[in-house]
Amino acid sequence: MIDTLLPTPDLWSAKRVLCIQPHYDDNDIAAAGTIARLVAQGSEIIYATVTNDLMGVVAGFTDDDAARVALKRDQAAAAAILGIHPQQYWLDYPDAGAYDYFAVRRDLLALIRRLRPDFVLTCDPWLTYEGHRDHIQTGLATSEAVMFAGLTRIASSDPQADAAYDPRHQISGIGFYFTREPNVIVDITSTWSQKEAALRCYHAQFDADGLDELVTAFYHKSIQVAAGHSFAHGEPLKILHPSALHCGI
Amino acid sequence: MIDTLLPTPDLWSAKRVLCIQPHYDDNDIAAAGTIARLVAQGSEIIYATVTNDLMGVVAGFTDDDAARVALKRDQAAAAAILGIHPQQYWLDYPDAGAYDYFAVRRDLLALIRRLRPDFVLTCDPWLTYEGHRDHIQTGLATSEAVMFAGLTRIASSDPQADAAYDPRHQISGIGFYFTREPNVIVDITSTWSQKEAALRCYHAQFDADGLDELVTAFYHKSIQVAAGHSFAHGEPLKILHPSALHCGI
Amino acid sequence: MIDTLLPTPDLWSAKRVLCIQPHYDDNDIAAAGTIARLVAQGSEIIYATVTNDLMGVVAGFTDDDAARVALKRDQAAAAAILGIHPQQYWLDYPDAGAYDYFAVRRDLLALIRRLRPDFVLTCDPWLTYEGHRDHIQTGLATSEAVMFAGLTRIASSDPQADAAYDPRHQISGIGFYFTREPNVIVDITSTWSQKEAALRCYHAQFDADGLDELVTAFYHKSIQVAAGHSFAHGEPLKILHPSALHCGI
Amino acid sequence: MIDTLLPTPDLWSAKRVLCIQPHYDDNDIAAAGTIARLVAQGSEIIYATVTNDLMGVVAGFTDDDAARVALKRDQAAAAAILGIHPQQYWLDYPDAGAYDYFAVRRDLLALIRRLRPDFVLTCDPWLTYEGHRDHIQTGLATSEAVMFAGLTRIASSDPQADAAYDPRHQISGIGFYFTREPNVIVDITSTWSQKEAALRCYHAQFDADGLDELVTAFYHKSIQVAAGHSFAHGEPLKILHPSALHCGI
Amino acid sequence: MIDTLLPTPDLWSAKRVLCIQPHYDDNDIAAAGTIARLVAQGSEIIYATVTNDLMGVVAGFTDDDAARVALKRDQAAAAAILGIHPQQYWLDYPDAGAYDYFAVRRDLLALIRRLRPDFVLTCDPWLTYEGHRDHIQTGLATSEAVMFAGLTRIASSDPQADAAYDPRHQISGIGFYFTREPNVIVDITSTWSQKEAALRCYHAQFDADGLDELVTAFYHKSIQVAAGHSFAHGEPLKILHPSALHCGI
Amino acid sequence: MIDTLLPTPDLWSAKRVLCIQPHYDDNDIAAAGTIARLVAQGSEIIYATVTNDLMGVVAGFTDDDAARVALKRDQAAAAAILGIHPQQYWLDYPDAGAYDYFAVRRDLLALIRRLRPDFVLTCDPWLTYEGHRDHIQTGLATSEAVMFAGLTRIASSDPQADAAYDPRHQISGIGFYFTREPNVIVDITSTWSQKEAALRCYHAQFDADGLDELVTAFYHKSIQVAAGHSFAHGEPLKILHPSALHCGI
Repeated sequence: MIDTLLPTPDLWSAKRVLCIQPHYDDNDIAAAGTIARLVAQGSEIIYATVTNDLMGVVAGFTDDDAARVALKRDQAAAAAILGIHPQQYWLDYPDAGAYDYFAVRRDLLALIRRLRPDFVLTCDPWLTYEGHRDHIQTGLATSEAVMFAGLTRIASSDPQADAAYDPRHQISGIGFYFTREPNVIVDITSTWSQKEAALRCYHAQFDADGLDELVTAFYHKSIQVAAGHSFAHGEPLKILHPSALHCGI
Repeated sequence: MIDTLLPTPDLWSAKRVLCIQPHYDDNDIAAAGTIARLVAQGSEIIYATVTNDLMGVVAGFTDDDAARVALKRDQAAAAAILGIHPQQYWLDYPDAGAYDYFAVRRDLLALIRRLRPDFVLTCDPWLTYEGHRDHIQTGLATSEAVMFAGLTRIASSDPQADAAYDPRHQISGIGFYFTREPNVIVDITSTWSQKEAALRCYHAQFDADGLDELVTAFYHKSIQVAAGHSFAHGEPLKILHPSALHCGI
Repeated sequence: MIDTLLPTPDLWSAKRVLCIQPHYDDNDIAAAGTIARLVAQGSEIIYATVTNDLMGVVAGFTDDDAARVALKRDQAAAAAILGIHPQQYWLDYPDAGAYDYFAVRRDLLALIRRLRPDFVLTCDPWLTYEGHRDHIQTGLATSEAVMFAGLTRIASSDPQADAAYDPRHQISGIGFYFTREPNVIVDITSTWSQKEAALRCYHAQFDADGLDELVTAFYHKSIQVAAGHSFAHGEPLKILHPSALHCGI
Repeated sequence: MIDTLLPTPDLWSAKRVLCIQPHYDDNDIAAAGTIARLVAQGSEIIYATVTNDLMGVVAGFTDDDAARVALKRDQAAAAAILGIHPQQYWLDYPDAGAYDYFAVRRDLLALIRRLRPDFVLTCDPWLTYEGHRDHIQTGLATSEAVMFAGLTRIASSDPQADAAYDPRHQISGIGFYFTREPNVIVDITSTWSQKEAALRCYHAQFDADGLDELVTAFYHKSIQVAAGHSFAHGEPLKILHPSALHCGI
Repeated sequence: MIDTLLPTPDLWSAKRVLCIQPHYDDNDIAAAGTIARLVAQGSEIIYATVTNDLMGVVAGFTDDDAARVALKRDQAAAAAILGIHPQQYWLDYPDAGAYDYFAVRRDLLALIRRLRPDFVLTCDPWLTYEGHRDHIQTGLATSEAVMFAGLTRIASSDPQADAAYDPRHQISGIGFYFTREPNVIVDITSTWSQKEAALRCYHAQFDADGLDELVTAFYHKSIQVAAGHSFAHGEPLKILHPSALHCGI
Repeated sequence: MIDTLLPTPDLWSAKRVLCIQPHYDDNDIAAAGTIARLVAQGSEIIYATVTNDLMGVVAGFTDDDAARVALKRDQAAAAAILGIHPQQYWLDYPDAGAYDYFAVRRDLLALIRRLRPDFVLTCDPWLTYEGHRDHIQTGLATSEAVMFAGLTRIASSDPQADAAYDPRHQISGIGFYFTREPNVIVDITSTWSQKEAALRCYHAQFDADGLDELVTAFYHKSIQVAAGHSFAHGEPLKILHPSALHCGI
């Protein structure tokens, strides 16, 4: 397996991190410990959720509008625990649905040109044995949006964002979570309790037993990935220079 | 490479195995030895074929209807050798064609809700260097159908199956064949001769030389994958808990 | 990781190599050193470019027609340096655009049936962390076109090519460049200077600084992949028998 | 031009009318006068809006969430004037966007099976010189949803609606507004002022001048279509028996 | 309304008529009387059915395979009554489903190149207020297949048909049934009883009451369209020269 | 049939007319007489061709590049005869192919925002019995591009065009040619000979007999549509205010 020649970008120097997730809880399930550390050191964190997340809501919601309110309330509660300014975008594509890849890509390109993050986090679409199409589409569309942000011939879905965009804007790194091939294991020992508290906010998708299982699973995962390191709990990331997303350089 | 934390489900405890293949011979080429052992221990085996398999039929068929009859006759003959009750479903998507992924996924979801298998076998869509789109689509659609079977907000293509479905139904495992990354090598030494006989039924896709080549290739493959084991012939499987299909847990 | 049982085809015995690239410079960036060696030993080389490459052209082109002329001029100049007969096909799909996968596949099938190469080179669509959809689509469509060339029930986009095709034509190998999992590292020490000169022709996509960066990056990459070999500069290829593109055999 | 043999269904006997519009103001622009009369005689009226209507909002909305709130406030205000119980559904497809026709059709089928209207109103997709694709898609998808509601083999997007559906439910008529070929001109003389007041609620899409133009245009249209009738103001409808939507019977 | 300048082709001089229908009974419902007259005068009649017709089958079929058998039995029985040689093709696209328009067009182009009819019948896709998408797609795809048969650069789905095709083959006319704008009313007084008997074969889609309604509806339709003619029962057709399908010439 | 209330825009006051055609000869076949009159009075005329027109080229072109050159040479020759400044755009979508409607719409939107015509001509997509999908798609996409040009939230394919666009730009009218429902018959008696000479330039699509047939057909058509008028030769147009493209106003 040949590795990239490019040095791994330094996540901790990020000033504004755009975290693009397929569903409303993926950022936190995968990376709340890392995000809490970024908040603590002063990085600005922004969440964007690609789907409307309506397929997985637990029983008891009689209509979609009630579910939407609950989803946003959960996300805000978790954000408060992590110390994130509640700037959260929803693209509202149908959960587990047949949306157009290019529409997502255009929307993410607009978001990147408007918000101009210097770091982007998302799920790893090359995770073998990830079956959920929303994850694969989100990861791929984010990758292309990061690569194409500076190619000003490529239109986003928002002409105002395109017109106002300064192509000197640079993204210094992209970090993939839910990865089998991490090059960075973030030490989250000090923020695990915050992560657990954040995960326990996601009531719309998990009943009480479901939340216990979720927390337990990722507790053990955090120990598994920390193996061989000097800390107890970790989150695995594949962090790449944007140029490493093309031609294997 | 980080592995799943979840234990490998036990294929041998499966009561009803739904084997979803892109073309009419894939289940047997990949896993006839395993399937013969499942039959021998009393598991019920059901086959579903996603495409109509009409592009690869050998010369001599002057029309598609004759080809369809021959394809089903081959499959029934192979099933008889393996001892499979001839319950075989065809979804009839065009072989090597431009069908809709979501339509396949809905049909597979309907099949799973109707038949309620406790184990599903299919081809591994993450097999690097697998070029056939039918295989990639079948493996991905099966994975999502397994993950979504219990999410009763997601419609299948069959309202009667959805209405009658009992969401307490659980799939205990999914096994991927044609995999480069097996976690189980099934000992098929005792069933190899059955497998060879079953493969030799597939006349509609292979002439005599073709059948010899097919059998020879998979004979040697069965020896390759058994290397380091105490048996002579093996079939490689990647067997996962359905929850391992999401987020790399 | 289980490997193919089939022997690696011998690229150096190739008489006619069809090099199918997503963008106008990928063949040369990835494999100009190899191609120059093939030319030197008498292999015929033909280039096909899938997209129109209009999204990445540098500032200064006021309209698309001027850009098209410049793109073809660059490609011809590089070809002259490598000694390639200037037989170059463009499929003209929109760069980074929403084209139909099956249309590309049909066009590539037509090209293969018309030109009857005995070897095909293209980019590796299974390259993990390759984000550019054009690369993934090109690699996958080429793989299926190679697999399906002899299946004469499958139509290409060109009935005349289909009618004239002799199904005894055989492709002996497919080579994937931009790969993380090479099985052949080609010694390009003797042709590196030709490669550098060819890359320096691609003015329409790179300004002077960009060309320097490009050459520097692939100079270092050529050293990285040669590590452990007896030569200084290499190009990595995954070379497979066409039958190895199916079922992991 | 051959006409249908089937008698025109009686709109005034409708008990529950589902009014399916592409954008948030189409029902009222086209048919508020008719709807006000239906309300007055005791028919229940329900609105469904197919798109999210975000492309046409007037300047001044700095983000989409503020626009969504304004759109719903406008619609509720107009509903209050017409006396409609504020039961309003939004399908949230992207305004003027590339959504999937079949997804819309499945959602409308779910809505019809859940709500069981005996009459459906929508825009006429066969209106020659209607250029807006949202209108064409909405009218066609509604037509098929009306035709297919009782075909219980066809799945909607909501398994619970499908399971609970009583196929004895009958839709007695479908009325198309924005039509060039009306068979009914509804006398809206008595409800014109209500219609005008309702239209003047739609601030998110029209500034003050725009509202004046809108009201003026449809004031004159209401006179045009009443020509030859004994009343001053009319709304044109093409009202058909659902069976008249097939084969020209 | 400007009419075509081209003379109306003479249906009665047709030697081989390919009748392309969306569902298995449309040819007969619309045109069995005309077809019986064509058979009587010696024209060869061939049926092609675009969809698999599985959505509308009446209750009582427990699985799709039983339904397929019943559908073909019905069609053969009706064909026997009309005197049609039972040469019947099924393209098997999913009834009321999301199939690819271009795949249908390619299949119809293959059928036309293989069978070389001099006349084609199909449903009128420009029938205003026809809501069934299968009808619109079938009529449009047939129109393009008729127009493009002689354009030998356009591939069908069958390379063998393309290779063997003689481009001197000419289609003299296309007739659209289910039309609101007929230019020919065929006198079917003498064949009405055959038509009724043929319609009464379609048990898989209609129960006894349904068949009575169907026959009654088209009985009255045949009288309606005959109004002003010297005969009692008619079938309306729009018959056009293939060149009249382009640019309104 | 209810007509629009809006007055018919005056084509003769147009300063810059963008003529959007599906194939390279449609503008001239339909409207060369009108265009020659517009040129004579000083209107600027610009042509845009949506497809690459490669399917209909006559025998004798051995490759696509030769065909492209011939197509552009024909178009330039015809333009010279009509006195058109040779500003001609090609969007290069595949002739008779499976391109994406929304990509065409975005490209046309970019063209309109860049060129800012005050009048647009195109083919009528509502022409009943027009079978060619390229015509239907072109007419519909042009209609939406005209309607949406001023909606600056809707992105075109060209961010630079979007950024530079002045939304005060107004299109005063859209004219549809190849229409069965004209509201204007342009007197082309004085420009017929120019039209004939222009049509006789289109050698790449017509052999000598074909050109004779083409000219003869449209000669007679020009007489047919002039019937009842005081002139000998006419071209039919449906000219509408852009607002008449929505809701039948």
